[in-house]
Amino acid sequence: MSVEALDPAAAAAARTRIDALTKPVGSLGRIEALAVHLCAIAGRVIDRAYEKKAILVGAADHGVAREGVSAYPAEVTPQMVGAFLAGHAAISAFARTARADVFVANFGVDADFAPHPLLIEVPLGRGTANLARGPAMDIATVHRAFAAGETALDFILAGNAYDVVALGDMGIANTTSAAAITAACCNVSAEAVTGRGTGIDDGHLLRKREVVARAIEQLGGSSWETIAAAIGGFEIVGLAGAIVRAASLRLPVVLDGFIVSAAALLAQRIEPRSIDYCIAAHRSQEPGHRIALEFLALEPLLDLNLRLGEGSGAALALPLIEAATRMIAEMKTFAEAGVATADDARTS
Amino acid sequence: MSVEALDPAAAAAARTRIDALTKPVGSLGRIEALAVHLCAIAGRVIDRAYEKKAILVGAADHGVAREGVSAYPAEVTPQMVGAFLAGHAAISAFARTARADVFVANFGVDADFAPHPLLIEVPLGRGTANLARGPAMDIATVHRAFAAGETALDFILAGNAYDVVALGDMGIANTTSAAAITAACCNVSAEAVTGRGTGIDDGHLLRKREVVARAIEQLGGSSWETIAAAIGGFEIVGLAGAIVRAASLRLPVVLDGFIVSAAALLAQRIEPRSIDYCIAAHRSQEPGHRIALEFLALEPLLDLNLRLGEGSGAALALPLIEAATRMIAEMKTFAEAGVATADDARTS
Repeated sequence: MSVEALDPAAAAAARTRIDALTKPVGSLGRIEALAVHLCAIAGRVIDRAYEKKAILVGAADHGVAREGVSAYPAEVTPQMVGAFLAGHAAISAFARTARADVFVANFGVDADFAPHPLLIEVPLGRGTANLARGPAMDIATVHRAFAAGETALDFILAGNAYDVVALGDMGIANTTSAAAITAACCNVSAEAVTGRGTGIDDGHLLRKREVVARAIEQLGGSSWETIAAAIGGFEIVGLAGAIVRAASLRLPVVLDGFIVSAAALLAQRIEPRSIDYCIAAHRSQEPGHRIALEFLALEPLLDLNLRLGEGSGAALALPLIEAATRMIAEMKTFAEAGVATADDARTS
Repeated sequence: MSVEALDPAAAAAARTRIDALTKPVGSLGRIEALAVHLCAIAGRVIDRAYEKKAILVGAADHGVAREGVSAYPAEVTPQMVGAFLAGHAAISAFARTARADVFVANFGVDADFAPHPLLIEVPLGRGTANLARGPAMDIATVHRAFAAGETALDFILAGNAYDVVALGDMGIANTTSAAAITAACCNVSAEAVTGRGTGIDDGHLLRKREVVARAIEQLGGSSWETIAAAIGGFEIVGLAGAIVRAASLRLPVVLDGFIVSAAALLAQRIEPRSIDYCIAAHRSQEPGHRIALEFLALEPLLDLNLRLGEGSGAALALPLIEAATRMIAEMKTFAEAGVATADDARTS
């Protein structure tokens, strides 16, 4: 694991403190490992709760929706953006549970939105071109989408000193793009990475696999720009930009499901060490998500059989981040609390 | 699963509403199942967030600690009770994350405590007798301990209308008692249920297995009272009382780890349907915990390699409970939100 390599001194100091807290060594399992990771990211032993949390949902439309690869019509993308901003979507409910702020970055939805304080307007167009019939976008647009993701992250941080940012997605047909990116980056078959997304039937699934398989066959190279231009989505490239930018600021990034993991696969090609700043929230029902997480060497915190996106799984993991920081910042050590240790039992 | 049987009409109404919310059917996996369960417990479709959460930590000492079965000296039990009340233990940190109140029920710790608003004094003695040398308590005390657990739960609810209660434990050497109870109730060997508890070495583990094996061999019957008297702990029997009482009030109960699952095994013998009101928070490192959960037919929400107790794993699961209730109470349906459905895609 490369986590400790981020900052070996901070990780070691965190480990030392955690082992001295009033609990048996190692008894908080994954929460302890998470705390060490967060300290390595911060570059020091964290001394306060991470209470300030942002969720950035990247939204965009996908020309490939015209191929009949989704159970839902494309107009659901802007409708759901409206639901996020109005606060009555799944991500809204889960964000309230985690006391997190939800921002939506419009990377290219096929609609116009009224201005809203939580809406970040960075559109690259009205949706990508249909990747089944040609490249989704050109190389110049890939770079603009990446920069738009950096901009979206900076916008969020300009208003508030968030401790952690969680990433989510919205875009009808974007599991097709994510599947193709995962197949290309992890070098696996279309069959291995193509799932039912929002819940398509067998006929749609066959068609989706065909689209993904042909898109991979026709890939003209393996650079991240080539992959992103051919089969990317605006929000997927934008989220890759947000990951790389967050990592450069030493901000922990909580990854949601399959779409965001595809963005992480692109981020890994752009800046491999950016993945060290990532925390995988959960393992989704999508078969490609498991493959992407293994390729990224990320072990998810939750396994709740989710497949919604929107950042919903990431939001559910945010309290675990807060808990890990409260553990290291707020628990006392045996010495501080005057509690007898295991060594006291051995010598008594 | 008997969850729907709790209230088939409420469960069906919950399922109908969840399927109409603005998300693909089934896309929130375990969170949807949890919401249906909570609605079946409530007897209606939940229409508000479960924000009011209590954690009840049952504490007691165990005579079997004198057999050298724990890595820690017995004085750690009262010291940790002090840490819970002072707010600097793991459960304190995690409870703050979940915005839950932590109560401690003293079911028989070998110490005197100053009065404290969060301390419930229901002691059965200064710790059980050493179960390796005879019964841990007599049958009359078993019944008093059970009633003490009911009293502790009523005390908590008298002050506040909590939506959910999580149960935890504190008691040096109590994994020995929990292991014996699990072996007796699930009819498995001492070897299968005896783990390292707080982290004992191989020598201590052999000794602990011996103690558990002999205790089970010498059991004079299989009624819950016989089991509890021979090998129980005051807090384990008390927590069984709290489970049965909570179920009778239709209050959802979140179970922590191995010790609390042993209490649930006793509760199951006393009132089998009480388990329908239980939600397993996590699967711990203790080998007996997995066995108990399977016997209780409970699928845990988290798997974070925990083995602390105190209610720490239950506290980490509380935000998932809140999220499930916010999902059903705060999300809009497709019709309410004016969002196109999968059917619209098929007919368009």
